[in-house]
Amino acid sequence: MPAVTARRSSKKPASKKRSSKKPVAVARAGSAQKSTRATASGKASGRTAQLTYFFAPGETEGDGSMKSLLGGKGANLAAMTSIGLPVPPGFTITTDVCNAYYASGSRMPRELAPQLDAAVKRLEKITGKKFGDRKAPLLVSVRSGARDSMPGMMDTILNLGLNDETVGALVTATGNPRFAWDCYRRFVQMYGDVVMGVQKRHDIEHEPFDAVMDALKHERGVQEDTHLDTGALQELVGRFKALIKERTGSAFPQDPRKQLEGSITAVFRSWMNDRAIVYRQKYRIPAEWGTAVNVQSMVFGNMGDDSGTGVAFTRDPATGENVLYGEYLVNAQGEDVVAGVRTPLPVAEMAHDPKIGGAYKQLLKVRKTLEKNFGDVQDFEFTIERKKLYMLQTRNGKRTALAYVRIAHDMVKERLMTADHALASSDPEAMNQLLQPVFERGAYAAAQRDGRVLTKGLAAGPGAASGEAVFSPARAVEWAAKGRRVVLCRVETSPEDLRGMIAAEGILTARGGVSSHAALVARQMGKVCVAGAGELSINYHAGTMTCNGRVVREGDHLSINGTTGEVIVGLIPTADSELKQVLIQRTMKPADSAVYGYYAFVMGLADKARTLGLRTNADGPEQTRNAIAFGAEGIGLTRTEHMFFEGNRIDAVRAMILAGDDAARASALAEIQVFMRSDFEAMFRVLEGRPACIRLLDPPLHEFLPHTQAQQADLAAKLGIHADRIAERVHALHEANPMLGFRGCRLGIVHPEITIMQARAIFEAAAAVKRSGTPVSPEVMVPLTGFAGEVKDQIALVRREAETIMEREGVRFKYLLGTMIEVPRGALTANEIAKEAEFFSFGTNDLTQTGLGISRDDSNMFTAPYLEKGIFKANPFESIDQVGVGELVRIACERGRATRPDIKLGVCGEHGGDPASIAFFQACGLHYVSCSPFRLPVARLAAGKAAVLAKRAAAASTKKPASKKPASKKPAPKAKRKP
Amino acid sequence: MPAVTARRSSKKPASKKRSSKKPVAVARAGSAQKSTRATASGKASGRTAQLTYFFAPGETEGDGSMKSLLGGKGANLAAMTSIGLPVPPGFTITTDVCNAYYASGSRMPRELAPQLDAAVKRLEKITGKKFGDRKAPLLVSVRSGARDSMPGMMDTILNLGLNDETVGALVTATGNPRFAWDCYRRFVQMYGDVVMGVQKRHDIEHEPFDAVMDALKHERGVQEDTHLDTGALQELVGRFKALIKERTGSAFPQDPRKQLEGSITAVFRSWMNDRAIVYRQKYRIPAEWGTAVNVQSMVFGNMGDDSGTGVAFTRDPATGENVLYGEYLVNAQGEDVVAGVRTPLPVAEMAHDPKIGGAYKQLLKVRKTLEKNFGDVQDFEFTIERKKLYMLQTRNGKRTALAYVRIAHDMVKERLMTADHALASSDPEAMNQLLQPVFERGAYAAAQRDGRVLTKGLAAGPGAASGEAVFSPARAVEWAAKGRRVVLCRVETSPEDLRGMIAAEGILTARGGVSSHAALVARQMGKVCVAGAGELSINYHAGTMTCNGRVVREGDHLSINGTTGEVIVGLIPTADSELKQVLIQRTMKPADSAVYGYYAFVMGLADKARTLGLRTNADGPEQTRNAIAFGAEGIGLTRTEHMFFEGNRIDAVRAMILAGDDAARASALAEIQVFMRSDFEAMFRVLEGRPACIRLLDPPLHEFLPHTQAQQADLAAKLGIHADRIAERVHALHEANPMLGFRGCRLGIVHPEITIMQARAIFEAAAAVKRSGTPVSPEVMVPLTGFAGEVKDQIALVRREAETIMEREGVRFKYLLGTMIEVPRGALTANEIAKEAEFFSFGTNDLTQTGLGISRDDSNMFTAPYLEKGIFKANPFESIDQVGVGELVRIACERGRATRPDIKLGVCGEHGGDPASIAFFQACGLHYVSCSPFRLPVARLAAGKAAVLAKRAAAASTKKPASKKPASKKPAPKAKRKP
Repeated sequence: MPAVTARRSSKKPASKKRSSKKPVAVARAGSAQKSTRATASGKASGRTAQLTYFFAPGETEGDGSMKSLLGGKGANLAAMTSIGLPVPPGFTITTDVCNAYYASGSRMPRELAPQLDAAVKRLEKITGKKFGDRKAPLLVSVRSGARDSMPGMMDTILNLGLNDETVGALVTATGNPRFAWDCYRRFVQMYGDVVMGVQKRHDIEHEPFDAVMDALKHERGVQEDTHLDTGALQELVGRFKALIKERTGSAFPQDPRKQLEGSITAVFRSWMNDRAIVYRQKYRIPAEWGTAVNVQSMVFGNMGDDSGTGVAFTRDPATGENVLYGEYLVNAQGEDVVAGVRTPLPVAEMAHDPKIGGAYKQLLKVRKTLEKNFGDVQDFEFTIERKKLYMLQTRNGKRTALAYVRIAHDMVKERLMTADHALASSDPEAMNQLLQPVFERGAYAAAQRDGRVLTKGLAAGPGAASGEAVFSPARAVEWAAKGRRVVLCRVETSPEDLRGMIAAEGILTARGGVSSHAALVARQMGKVCVAGAGELSINYHAGTMTCNGRVVREGDHLSINGTTGEVIVGLIPTADSELKQVLIQRTMKPADSAVYGYYAFVMGLADKARTLGLRTNADGPEQTRNAIAFGAEGIGLTRTEHMFFEGNRIDAVRAMILAGDDAARASALAEIQVFMRSDFEAMFRVLEGRPACIRLLDPPLHEFLPHTQAQQADLAAKLGIHADRIAERVHALHEANPMLGFRGCRLGIVHPEITIMQARAIFEAAAAVKRSGTPVSPEVMVPLTGFAGEVKDQIALVRREAETIMEREGVRFKYLLGTMIEVPRGALTANEIAKEAEFFSFGTNDLTQTGLGISRDDSNMFTAPYLEKGIFKANPFESIDQVGVGELVRIACERGRATRPDIKLGVCGEHGGDPASIAFFQACGLHYVSCSPFRLPVARLAAGKAAVLAKRAAAASTKKPASKKPASKKPAPKAKRKP
Repeated sequence: MPAVTARRSSKKPASKKRSSKKPVAVARAGSAQKSTRATASGKASGRTAQLTYFFAPGETEGDGSMKSLLGGKGANLAAMTSIGLPVPPGFTITTDVCNAYYASGSRMPRELAPQLDAAVKRLEKITGKKFGDRKAPLLVSVRSGARDSMPGMMDTILNLGLNDETVGALVTATGNPRFAWDCYRRFVQMYGDVVMGVQKRHDIEHEPFDAVMDALKHERGVQEDTHLDTGALQELVGRFKALIKERTGSAFPQDPRKQLEGSITAVFRSWMNDRAIVYRQKYRIPAEWGTAVNVQSMVFGNMGDDSGTGVAFTRDPATGENVLYGEYLVNAQGEDVVAGVRTPLPVAEMAHDPKIGGAYKQLLKVRKTLEKNFGDVQDFEFTIERKKLYMLQTRNGKRTALAYVRIAHDMVKERLMTADHALASSDPEAMNQLLQPVFERGAYAAAQRDGRVLTKGLAAGPGAASGEAVFSPARAVEWAAKGRRVVLCRVETSPEDLRGMIAAEGILTARGGVSSHAALVARQMGKVCVAGAGELSINYHAGTMTCNGRVVREGDHLSINGTTGEVIVGLIPTADSELKQVLIQRTMKPADSAVYGYYAFVMGLADKARTLGLRTNADGPEQTRNAIAFGAEGIGLTRTEHMFFEGNRIDAVRAMILAGDDAARASALAEIQVFMRSDFEAMFRVLEGRPACIRLLDPPLHEFLPHTQAQQADLAAKLGIHADRIAERVHALHEANPMLGFRGCRLGIVHPEITIMQARAIFEAAAAVKRSGTPVSPEVMVPLTGFAGEVKDQIALVRREAETIMEREGVRFKYLLGTMIEVPRGALTANEIAKEAEFFSFGTNDLTQTGLGISRDDSNMFTAPYLEKGIFKANPFESIDQVGVGELVRIACERGRATRPDIKLGVCGEHGGDPASIAFFQACGLHYVSCSPFRLPVARLAAGKAAVLAKRAAAASTKKPASKKPASKKPAPKAKRKP
């Protein structure tokens, strides 16, 4: 025993804190925290992680697959070098170094310095130049490079290695003193700004380096930078150095090795600058990725008219056309193109420029090489130094949705791109662009220019809408019936507004988030919508909408941009998308469309790849038809209550709720049953045997009753009852938290007659359609289940009706009875519930509300600060919270399958149309996702992408353990596709 | 490979369904489902389960511990036989038979018949009598016997074995033909009714056997049953048999073996009769327990004046006094005592009855033997047959709370009862009886008799209150200040009503459940409350409360019974409980109380046994003081917002919410900080170093603003701002689902200044108290955490203030910073959250609301039907839903401990005072429970009971596996007690 104690206590000193000033260790690992841990073991095993990766012909250490370690730029520089493209040699410092830097409180890992020395030495050897050498000085650029490109977000240093001595060598080498001193001047300025942090002292001060230069130009009497002669530039360098000393207290370092260290640190620092943080938030890039740093020997595009620099795409990124697309500047460095001081020429002009020699032909060859080797459109930077072409960077080109589908179509057909890559590299969300009506470009720009943008809300339903402002659904219907285009403006919307929303071109609300009723309905209908424009004050009584002192009256022209959230005064003409004209209106032949063929090709790729089935949330035959046109393989959610608001139907529903006795209630139910049955019949006919998952009545009954005195009086007159009775019932049904109240299956359990009526409507419709020769496949879904007993109770009622009706009508068809999993208890007791339910459909909207304890209608007050503080990684109502809500989904899948291995699993919450969520559902092994009809192109592509990425991940994970020991785990079973 | 296939397919026939008519097999197992499964393996192993257990001197197979197999009655008959008490011999048919009977669709298991034959044969041998024997017929009783006594719920058959022939033997044996025929007549009647199901044809028909007898009495011209002579009884038997044949189509069976089978089946059937189901629901007895059947040879208390029958308690079950307590009837059978036809005599009278010989002395000896052997007060049945005493049944006696504490005190001191048994057998809930003010008995009975009961609501705060009805808190305060006793009647209550609630004798609401604000506050304050009396219509404007046409006006006398839910018109005098007079008012010396000494003794037993710490939910020094008097070891929850409603404090809170600028807000916050600090100081002083867990502001801000126009105008005048501003702010803060809205830590994250102010108030108070020499132990709790980032954010703010203040004040004390776990995501991510939080306190109220997706305020509409249908096993807001919500608690404990092994775990939801929930928390290994001050006696006893039961369960589980293989699992570590 004493031995153990002794050993323990002897361990203690080893775990004492690091002394605070020493550099820290680093080792290969994903996250900062892991790094720290990995270090200790790395040290123990005696291996030191490789922190720099060299690239030069025949000496390249990295490759194109190493983006997480080398960043996108570094990996692709290695790849281009390997395939023989003319890349100036250099090396990449890994992202691990960046992570170690931040993990240790902004200190460089101690292993970096020796490796940096070695890499510089190697670069000197290859280039035959030397840091600080008076004859052949090595000059380098230092650039950031994250895993995903973050263009312009981080810092870059050019011409590093210049100092008071090496500048002379550059004079000699180029025979151009003005050029050499201009390079030096730029370097000092850039270094002073980026590395040493010379900044404006206050907002009204001019940028200090510019001020110094302007003063000199004034002294010398010149207008343009380019008119400053060599002497003036020498003077300028001196004044810049003085400025640096004055502002920072430190001198500009003459030692290139020091310059290099400073520059690397500056790039790491810029990973955490405000711009970069905001960018990462927007594009959901984890801070843990870190940035790499690329150190590359300089080439000069500004050595004269036989030199130049440019950026280009291998194809047109806006239209997808198969042409080299880009621009270049003669006698310029990269930053000049970006700065926009001079106007660049289209890259095709190079063909006619004899001074650059064969560089253009070289460029055309490079274009082919790039596409062939990278398998995608490349967005690249090049420099021509005295007729010789150099490649400085390449990456997959960002493109519009139109360009995406065209390029995918063309390159897959040309066998330049794999179908897998076409899907894996897609941005499914962008498919929306193909569906949006758009403002006529010129008029839109004019409106923005003229200050007609009133305010900005949430971009809730993409697209553009223009029309007369109305403030009531009734007015919207009335005016639309007369052919007037209206924009419905409401404080917020409710199911009662549905007809008005349908009639309107677009919907604008002052309250509510991206998942509010307005936004949800808008997306489901593909309606343009700006929601939650909080600056608006809408006064129904006065018929006005006020915003910052400006007043919009009923009938005033108003335009809204559901893609940007802008609310604009006045009319802006719009045009419908071609896809809708082909698929929905059928006013355009597929062959006449410039988009449709490409779109259909890409959807075909997705369909071939995906293992997830695809359904839609649709509440009537029209929506169902549209959804099928967009690729739906069935209905994942029909909300029966949405049928209640057409025509005078709501009166019967209200009569049911207000019924004073059983007879009155039975008669109201009979009336409802008739119209529900006819709706279901129409839907079954459109579906032609595709499954239809129908949810039993879900919302609390008070949602169907009028709430104002006037409306109640109207209804009382209509039903021939006393208004007090209505007020009393509304009062009795009032709830503190309707979301958690008397709704879902709770209604059907307390009022079985409502469930029975619905079951009859569904199965009588199904029997009728089946008898007429069309197959049917109804699925009935019990909402809001938390207890197995609830499903058992409701399913028994529905099954009895189904069997009775099939018996009576003399037909048989298969049907499924299942439930929504949308409260945590339902997920946790899925093993019990699966004894009763044949399928689960995850209602992730409510599961998010209950799992997180957050009402989506009330989350506006804190969502923005939560996103800013990083408490939310993403808005949980837009993209599923994989950690918390996702765990409930995983638990429910696992437990449901344990009881009933063939249980059908799907999702019908809003997340069913979100690409990140779809990838998650793929991983959970769901059978299908369901989303609103106009989200289908997004979901379809996302499902294809998710399948490809899952396949790749599975391949990668079976590869890895194989090297250690025989794979002990089977790969996750591929979900069987049954929508 | 083919071999595998062949083997598989050869297996199939074995799994085919049982043919449907054969009797089924049975084996020992807990539940019906398990039985079915266990059968197969039992069969395979060749063992047949023992289905009957014999009891007779020297031949007893069961014992007192086998209650789950033999039922309480069967186990105790075996026990009494074993200790030599005079029990007529017989045998018990096990509960497994009952479960097998139900599991197989009401068929007897096939193994029963041979075992039954054997048992009958054995009984015949011992008694020297025979079924159907003309000379010495065996007569038996057949009685139900569940694990827990369910008095009167199930069926009983006496005198079984009588038929047309054996009745003659009884004539001979007793020399009393009338007696013999009366027995036969009773048996035929009972058998026809219970076994053969002769019932009334419709409600207005008389009970058919009674009708036949009445007709005969009319014919014979007699009034009383006892005046029917032997001939008449013979005639009656004939008529009864005819009635049976007519009504059931079957003849009364003459074969005793058939009679026995029928009776056993009837007893099993009665397990599922309506009464039994309702009873089990009420007392939470699982249907899976099943009932046993006891077949026992008959003894006759109706053989003359030297015979008799009686029931008795070994001590007085109402007062606990150490005297034999009970009643008996001379010349009677058991059913006569129950039927109440004749008035029984006090059992002490037996001492003076020479005809029964030494039976009374025997009884006094039996009393001692019973208490000594059963270790508790016994409630027993006896019969004297010709001077000889027979024991027919014994069980632990039910008793009032007063009797419970007195008996526990006395018997533990007398070493007749173990402390463990005193705790394990307790009903902690009943401790409430010791705290309730009660109506003066006579006046109460009169009120009920006179039809003054207006309606019934939920019994939300136990006790009785009487006073003048008032409809506003202001009026309650005003009248109470004048010494008037008032009952506050509200539609529902909110924190604004608090002062009125304090002033009132009792609280009555028309809306809200047992966990509504009114009920919660009432319980916390020990206030009488009837909640959710839905028939009441309260009109504040008119100052009236209407119910079924009766009107109560302000100032009218009203009484409410919080134990029954009754609302009664008029005044009924009440008296306070002694415990409160001793502990709270301190107007009575402990020694003067008839209760206190016993109570304190029992609490001492609980304190010795329990491993759970005990805290209280208290919001001020007064409540804290009361709680400590009741045994609290610290505060588990202080709701800071409850401090906001005293005096004019609310004005500062409102000023904070309505502040137009930072300065105004800061000034309001400073004002709030002052009074909070003073409250905390007072509480720390009372606590004297006990821990105080303080929750940061939790409710949504709109709860603090006035909602009516008039109130808003008042406030505007007071604050000197425009009323529109208030309306605007109220409108802006309005929420669709406030429960899931902008509250909890969300407030503090968006408005850090509110958190900082609270931290300052807490730590300045703690520092001041510490400096004055009193130790302090503050704990600050972040509410409604779902994301680790939330806790991190809030804890950082609080810690900074704590450190700053300790530094500034020059004191140091320990404090803990932790969080409430009350949304599912918080539980699921407890591993992450535990990195930040030093303790978890489970807010099981909100965890139930979110985990189940049920708003407690809105659950009234479906709670009753859910309980009726068995979907809820218990109201989940009263007793924790162990399956769903409980799983979240277990997950959180497990994950929290994985990250931080010494994390402190407690519960502060309402469930912290519920005995069943406390047992669950004990099993989870929580460190403490917290409940409102007046729930403490219940919780304290429940914690003691839970510890004893856990200890027993652990002992049982280590015993079991030991017989199979060495215990591989360590027993769960005993939770360390740190409140």
